[in-house]
Amino acid sequence: MKRFSVWAPQAEEVAMRVGATTVPMRRSSSGWWQPERMPGRGAAYGYLVNGEGPFPDPRSQWQPEGVHGLSRRLDQDRHRWTDQGWRPPSIERAVVYELHIGTFTSEGTFDAAALKLDHLVNLGVTHLELMPVHQFPGSRGWGYDAASLFAVHASYGGPLGLMRFVDACHGRGLGVILDVVYNHLGPEGNYLPKFGPYLTDRYGTLWGQAINLDGPGSDQVRRFICDNALQWLDDFHLDGLRLDAVHGYIDVSARPLLEQISQEVACLQERLGRPLALIAESNQNDPRIVLSRDAGGMGLNLMWNDDFHHALHVALTQERDGYYQDFAGLDDLAIALRQGFVYGGRYAPSRQAVVGRADQAPPLEHLVAYLQNHDQVGNRALGDRVGHLADLELAKVGAAILMTGPFIPMIFQGEEWAATSPFLYFTDLQDPALGRAVRQGRRREFSEFLAPGSRVPDPQGETTFQRSKLCWEEVTSSEHQSMLRWYRDLIGLRRRCPDLFAGGNAPVVEVGRNWLVMRRGRAMVVLNLSSRRREVSIELRGTEAPSIMLASRSGVSWAGGALSLPARTGAILGPTLGI
Amino acid sequence: MKRFSVWAPQAEEVAMRVGATTVPMRRSSSGWWQPERMPGRGAAYGYLVNGEGPFPDPRSQWQPEGVHGLSRRLDQDRHRWTDQGWRPPSIERAVVYELHIGTFTSEGTFDAAALKLDHLVNLGVTHLELMPVHQFPGSRGWGYDAASLFAVHASYGGPLGLMRFVDACHGRGLGVILDVVYNHLGPEGNYLPKFGPYLTDRYGTLWGQAINLDGPGSDQVRRFICDNALQWLDDFHLDGLRLDAVHGYIDVSARPLLEQISQEVACLQERLGRPLALIAESNQNDPRIVLSRDAGGMGLNLMWNDDFHHALHVALTQERDGYYQDFAGLDDLAIALRQGFVYGGRYAPSRQAVVGRADQAPPLEHLVAYLQNHDQVGNRALGDRVGHLADLELAKVGAAILMTGPFIPMIFQGEEWAATSPFLYFTDLQDPALGRAVRQGRRREFSEFLAPGSRVPDPQGETTFQRSKLCWEEVTSSEHQSMLRWYRDLIGLRRRCPDLFAGGNAPVVEVGRNWLVMRRGRAMVVLNLSSRRREVSIELRGTEAPSIMLASRSGVSWAGGALSLPARTGAILGPTLGI
Repeated sequence: MKRFSVWAPQAEEVAMRVGATTVPMRRSSSGWWQPERMPGRGAAYGYLVNGEGPFPDPRSQWQPEGVHGLSRRLDQDRHRWTDQGWRPPSIERAVVYELHIGTFTSEGTFDAAALKLDHLVNLGVTHLELMPVHQFPGSRGWGYDAASLFAVHASYGGPLGLMRFVDACHGRGLGVILDVVYNHLGPEGNYLPKFGPYLTDRYGTLWGQAINLDGPGSDQVRRFICDNALQWLDDFHLDGLRLDAVHGYIDVSARPLLEQISQEVACLQERLGRPLALIAESNQNDPRIVLSRDAGGMGLNLMWNDDFHHALHVALTQERDGYYQDFAGLDDLAIALRQGFVYGGRYAPSRQAVVGRADQAPPLEHLVAYLQNHDQVGNRALGDRVGHLADLELAKVGAAILMTGPFIPMIFQGEEWAATSPFLYFTDLQDPALGRAVRQGRRREFSEFLAPGSRVPDPQGETTFQRSKLCWEEVTSSEHQSMLRWYRDLIGLRRRCPDLFAGGNAPVVEVGRNWLVMRRGRAMVVLNLSSRRREVSIELRGTEAPSIMLASRSGVSWAGGALSLPARTGAILGPTLGI
Repeated sequence: MKRFSVWAPQAEEVAMRVGATTVPMRRSSSGWWQPERMPGRGAAYGYLVNGEGPFPDPRSQWQPEGVHGLSRRLDQDRHRWTDQGWRPPSIERAVVYELHIGTFTSEGTFDAAALKLDHLVNLGVTHLELMPVHQFPGSRGWGYDAASLFAVHASYGGPLGLMRFVDACHGRGLGVILDVVYNHLGPEGNYLPKFGPYLTDRYGTLWGQAINLDGPGSDQVRRFICDNALQWLDDFHLDGLRLDAVHGYIDVSARPLLEQISQEVACLQERLGRPLALIAESNQNDPRIVLSRDAGGMGLNLMWNDDFHHALHVALTQERDGYYQDFAGLDDLAIALRQGFVYGGRYAPSRQAVVGRADQAPPLEHLVAYLQNHDQVGNRALGDRVGHLADLELAKVGAAILMTGPFIPMIFQGEEWAATSPFLYFTDLQDPALGRAVRQGRRREFSEFLAPGSRVPDPQGETTFQRSKLCWEEVTSSEHQSMLRWYRDLIGLRRRCPDLFAGGNAPVVEVGRNWLVMRRGRAMVVLNLSSRRREVSIELRGTEAPSIMLASRSGVSWAGGALSLPARTGAILGPTLGI
């Protein structure tokens, strides 16, 4: 990894500014510039390009003054790792917990998050997935407006804070996955165009100019991205990456960026001798992302399955706005459980386009499923969680199918105790014009979904951020404890019961009006979503009725050949208690 | 195929205008409009969209008045096909002849071209490849600025002319391939945006707005393109398509357009019971285009190999301008002959990017090679052919390696007799502003390559077109006859000699300063590119020196263990005359 060298192929002159000193730099033939001497330990520095600047180092690992400030030399030996010999839990058996460092605790730091590891270990999750932690503009944000891609966000605790956190997680047996954003660069604090052709006008994205992945200079732009991926895994000991919106990688080259990342991470995995996981988010339902490279795929481990979420969300809430119009509730949930995607080559009305492909399907164990995630909660006008929309008993039913289904389950911070705090969209853009634009954009996008009199929270407002923080005090109340127990029980059962492992038993699913039965091996999951008790008749294979291993409410019982469930109840059955 | 129905999903009202009559149309749920009655046989018609128009039918097959005029109903029974039971020559053994209907003959029509079939049959080529024949603006043009994609260019003879031509070719045993342009739409005469979201602002192309292949409405845009591909193969009996610049298909969907075309053509092939060939042009050196769909490829038959051309062109002409700077002559020619592409994951200086991929290579027999083609000749300031740049003897040496190499060879109209006429860039845009733009653009692009005092020909000028027409009178002169005999001999040898078939024997190539030896099975090709006689020592496998089967000049002889060749000579050797 090149440090304190900078790629600036078209620059006439590049120099390093360290304090009041200007250190000359020399150009190599490939457009890289090297300083005559390195900045001293902990020194603040920046680059002058054609006399302009100083600008922060594009590969700075530390921006203590934020995206607009000088870079600071990070001496990695300042953290002494204690995770020698670390091997993460297998990603094939993972239960993932997504969290946002800024709102996970009231302090909003890595160190404060590390104090909550007992809670997470007791919950039973195996991997944490951190929303982006690179340096973004201001102090508050989701992190998807990447600016300084290699630096760890200063208000979270900076690079040393991330090292301490990952080390602590490993000490408790938890793997850590990091969300990284390579589909666009944020509008503020992005000094990369001062250095080279990182952006292109050839393509656009939802968020502005596209990254130059296939034009002149693209090899070094791709190097920048791949080196970034490798940095997290190597320098920061991360166990995997979640690649945000890979459908935004616009790249017609013979070797797509996604494949290059996948190959380079595979090489690093071999070198490091520990497994590294890659997880993609894509809105295209493209099975090739997780197919092996031999089969013409990209060879990633996992990809997010929004279709499962949407089908389940509609079944629980009856919402049909926006993209939920594409989903018909339980029937589509059954399709998702059997096939992975609901849209595999079908026309999606909300998108007015065919989504996915009919002739290939992703292996179910390569999909990540969720009842909540940062997008599905946060990209609502009021950031409301499923437990705010449906009632808590229905949320438990949703959790039951999530945790017993064929996918890798993921939960979103606070979901496990039905946190009352919303997860709102918040930003802290320093440029007033950009701040106004995001405020107006948000209002325009969401006003129609709001009840009269309600207002879209101001993303730039400090309180919008504060309101999104988890209230750990509420965990001890009895209602929240009940949800927390349910999640613990479900996660425990999932991890203990081989019949429920991802990829183990393809689900056999039967649905009716407001009920669903899913068999996986010897295990059986029965859901009653209706608001009254009902009997669901079950065809038994043996002579003995399976025992009820877990139920979200009391009052589940056998009545002849049928299982009787109270309103809004999920139950998991097995042949014996010892399944 | 939908005829006289039109997709206009956002229109409030669509009607058909036939003469002075307005025929109401009814909207179906999918955004298609159907008229109450069809236009009569041969009637001129158009569509009124929200009262605007009439505009030509997006799927019009006949535009007798050009791109801006009314459409005309084509009654396909007006041509009686005589090619029942037709099966084209195998594409794996093809020798392709690229031609441009407008300049192939002085008349510039299908019917005039059909009178030259004797010449082509005697030459020995197996397939003709027509530059685009859809209706483009004006009467003169290369055809890549597609406007009315389903219509056959009126000044070439319209749809019935194409039918007669293809039928006549089939009658002489020649297959016909058509060049089709799906990467952009031309700037003039494109009324598609009046009807629906055919274009998108999300991506750009070199030629303007991109076609909407993955956004809202894209399924019908893709239907439009795929139906167009199928039309040529089905209604017009074409034997294959050459897909222009497929790297311009910007498409992040799970099922790339190129794959969809490939699959739909495979289905049509099964239905028609005759082979259909797909040939791609791509500047990305992406082997997946020709890998099978099972191996994660797109399953096309062939793709163009510019690298072979460029390496050979540099070896013959010593040009190093523009993209020729990326090629080192004979050494790179040897790489191309062995591996297909010179750039398989290497950085190309002229493009400032890595081109191709290192871990996959295209099977050599899936590549099309050429010493000249419309682009390589026409995209020069003066449209000069290789015989104008190097001398004719060197052009013969180039032809020798082309015709004996491992690829599918293609020649460009007139190449076979070293035609003196250039192939210039010509247009006939009707919009004066566009005409000015193309004139200025051409001048800007090429002035630097011209000698002082030379001028870039005016693409809009009638004489630029006239000068590009072949002069068939010159064929009979002795110098031209000599070249023509050479091409006939080479093509004859290639078709007769299994050692030289594409995909048969991987070439074993040895190069030195100005010489090259290529062995393919028992055949051996020896080139002397220098301007003096030289001896090339040949390691013989048997005891007997191979006989000289063909030589571009007299005076080739064995001298001990070496072959002595006059300056600028190519010779093909074999163990016996009867190889």
